[in-house]
Amino acid sequence: MTFVVLALFAASAQAQTADDIIKRELATSQAYDTLQYLTDNIGARLSGSTNAAAAVRWATGTFQKWGIPVANEQVMVPHWVRGLEYGRLVSHRNQAIVLTALGGSVATPAKGITADLVEVSSFDELKTTDVKGKIVFYNNPMDMDMVRAHRSFEAYSKAVVFRGSGASRAAEYGAVAAVIRSVGSASLRTPHTGAMRYDPKLPKIPAAAMTVEDAMLIDRLLKKGERVTMRLVLTPQTLPDVMSANVVAEIRGSEKPDEIVLIGGHLDSWDLGTGAIDDGSGVAMVMETMRLLKEMDLHPKRTIRAVLFMNEENGLNGGRAYFAAHKNEKHVAVIETDAGAAAPTGFRTTLKAGALADLEKRAQPLAAIGAAHFESAPETGADTSFLTEAGVPGFGLVPEPLHYFDYHHSPADTLDKVDPKELAQDTAAVAALAWILANQ
Amino acid sequence: MTFVVLALFAASAQAQTADDIIKRELATSQAYDTLQYLTDNIGARLSGSTNAAAAVRWATGTFQKWGIPVANEQVMVPHWVRGLEYGRLVSHRNQAIVLTALGGSVATPAKGITADLVEVSSFDELKTTDVKGKIVFYNNPMDMDMVRAHRSFEAYSKAVVFRGSGASRAAEYGAVAAVIRSVGSASLRTPHTGAMRYDPKLPKIPAAAMTVEDAMLIDRLLKKGERVTMRLVLTPQTLPDVMSANVVAEIRGSEKPDEIVLIGGHLDSWDLGTGAIDDGSGVAMVMETMRLLKEMDLHPKRTIRAVLFMNEENGLNGGRAYFAAHKNEKHVAVIETDAGAAAPTGFRTTLKAGALADLEKRAQPLAAIGAAHFESAPETGADTSFLTEAGVPGFGLVPEPLHYFDYHHSPADTLDKVDPKELAQDTAAVAALAWILANQ
Repeated sequence: MTFVVLALFAASAQAQTADDIIKRELATSQAYDTLQYLTDNIGARLSGSTNAAAAVRWATGTFQKWGIPVANEQVMVPHWVRGLEYGRLVSHRNQAIVLTALGGSVATPAKGITADLVEVSSFDELKTTDVKGKIVFYNNPMDMDMVRAHRSFEAYSKAVVFRGSGASRAAEYGAVAAVIRSVGSASLRTPHTGAMRYDPKLPKIPAAAMTVEDAMLIDRLLKKGERVTMRLVLTPQTLPDVMSANVVAEIRGSEKPDEIVLIGGHLDSWDLGTGAIDDGSGVAMVMETMRLLKEMDLHPKRTIRAVLFMNEENGLNGGRAYFAAHKNEKHVAVIETDAGAAAPTGFRTTLKAGALADLEKRAQPLAAIGAAHFESAPETGADTSFLTEAGVPGFGLVPEPLHYFDYHHSPADTLDKVDPKELAQDTAAVAALAWILANQ
Repeated sequence: MTFVVLALFAASAQAQTADDIIKRELATSQAYDTLQYLTDNIGARLSGSTNAAAAVRWATGTFQKWGIPVANEQVMVPHWVRGLEYGRLVSHRNQAIVLTALGGSVATPAKGITADLVEVSSFDELKTTDVKGKIVFYNNPMDMDMVRAHRSFEAYSKAVVFRGSGASRAAEYGAVAAVIRSVGSASLRTPHTGAMRYDPKLPKIPAAAMTVEDAMLIDRLLKKGERVTMRLVLTPQTLPDVMSANVVAEIRGSEKPDEIVLIGGHLDSWDLGTGAIDDGSGVAMVMETMRLLKEMDLHPKRTIRAVLFMNEENGLNGGRAYFAAHKNEKHVAVIETDAGAAAPTGFRTTLKAGALADLEKRAQPLAAIGAAHFESAPETGADTSFLTEAGVPGFGLVPEPLHYFDYHHSPADTLDKVDPKELAQDTAAVAALAWILANQ
């Protein structure tokens, strides 16, 4: 009986502290200030860039300023630099096509590639379409019904396969370049970039994303039976790999310091915007969680470790390096936040059945900010996927996803898209869940 | 008695024909096809460009194909050509600023102008601010409450004064360049261009519009007390004036051929988008009205004259030339359509009191498409302002204005922003009103 009472008391104290964490964060959040410095004063920070290095120095220095032990863990990253990029429909009065190179793309010759466009909407179509010597145009919109049903990430996953491997698949059939329809859920002639990968066995052809409007234009012209010829100019460069770093900070556990609850986001961003929602906001949530726990002088039983991963966008080398260095440590849970900063709705988790039901009970304090919904999912974040695949329970914050892909990977991913109150709510959700997991 | 009966019969027949025009247009509209050719196959058509000349040839040939008498009336227009354009915050890690030259701007030196930014939000502030040697930043947002209250054009008028004369006003106090916050009601890092004018008595300094996001960024940095230094590169050119033309087509009146009901829109567009809502849709409505009347074999009592004006955007030379050539003809009414292609709500009109009430009665057939609301206004369109200022009753179509300035003068002004059904409704409104005015 005494034991049960004590356990209940402990659970209640734990819940009370989670409540306090949430209230304190909502009342005194500095998350937006952190995000503002990262986006306004450092800005875009693609792996290998001087800005990415500046972000590492700034995050490290900020943890130090807060009195939180921090280390840089080195990781080699690619260094791809965007160049000139434009398209012209030479068949149609030289009409301008707004496009952006996909990350990792090789360059065209300086004078560009001029070739006919041929449209497909699946890899199967490549087999039955004459694409030799042509520019393959993958016209695959995000399913907007799915987006409106708040299943944006599912819609993204379906459409994005053509971004990742479309160039090599087209090259296999003799295409000279590949262009996709931007994977985005809104457009004001807005291009969305993102990573692509070459199959090393196939010729490397340039790859770009057109805006939705330009994709619709070319689709209309082709559907009218017109021959559409584009001049495509892309001059990106792949420079030698650069030594960069993950930033790792921690608050040591008071009872089980060797058991780790990891909270993480990624410090790198694409180069077109300033990476506010992807993933500056995740970085801000993770840093603010640590600042808050330190300021509140809270001492978790287990270690809470913050990891700001480098190179999530175009390589995942940071996540891979962290796993290689730390896989033998005992991670009891990982929380990744890389899905924007809209109001929290809950978490995706690899937990199932009884373990999930148990967690839901302990996570009731999160209901105060609408973040107590937990949904089983096969994966909960890219950087921490190496850990979850090794069996560590994973959590991924789920902010309301309706508008995330309006901005994602585009020039419009800027600070003004983030609401300070929602960012504080997200942070409170991450901080409270981390606390609960570290004290269970 | 007989006379009254005949008059009622005539009014009734007139209303019946207006009904028929509306029904026929809604059922068989080709307006969208016309707009599609203009925007997809010709594209952007700034005054003086080869595309503007192509638009004149195409419109002329299309009227001829339809069997409608048409003429080109020559007009000299400016020929301004956009060049490179970008900004970098050299004080802030060379952060990219997305901007676009204002139409008519002079160029910077090839290496750009590098100077501190100083923010103002009124011309009065220039008097008390040290702007000498600096880049003046006019940070004047559109009033979004006003936009949401469907008073977008009023919000635009208030904000746009800084675009038009901001450079010269800043030059008066020694500024070296001027940048405005884009005058738009939505942004995904979207720049909105538009005309500016130099005061001939003052030094000509370069002028550009930044996106709303970039304006907000610079405002935040300055409000934090930081020194913000920008390198601004603009390389537009003003080439010699070009001979262009208004396209004038007409269906002669059966009873009073010398009395003219003019319907007009403008054939030129800005260069960033393809001018679908500004003013391809107006051109399509005007051309489609003529095609429809011809196809229906309708013979108005008065002449219905279609005018596709050249150079509305950056000079108004087409409207001025038309007035100079035709001011002694008897125009009984002018209908201008240059406010987009969303669903019609009615017309602005210079008519007042009794004349307005009388017109509202005769225009009842327009209620079928929600376009029977008439609102007194001091002006009803730029190209026809010379006529209305001379006393000709003016009408301006009012499509629902909520989203017009989301796209206006930006790269996002493209065909996909137009709904074919709404365009047909707009066309039906213009055609029915023209018919009513030509037969009253």
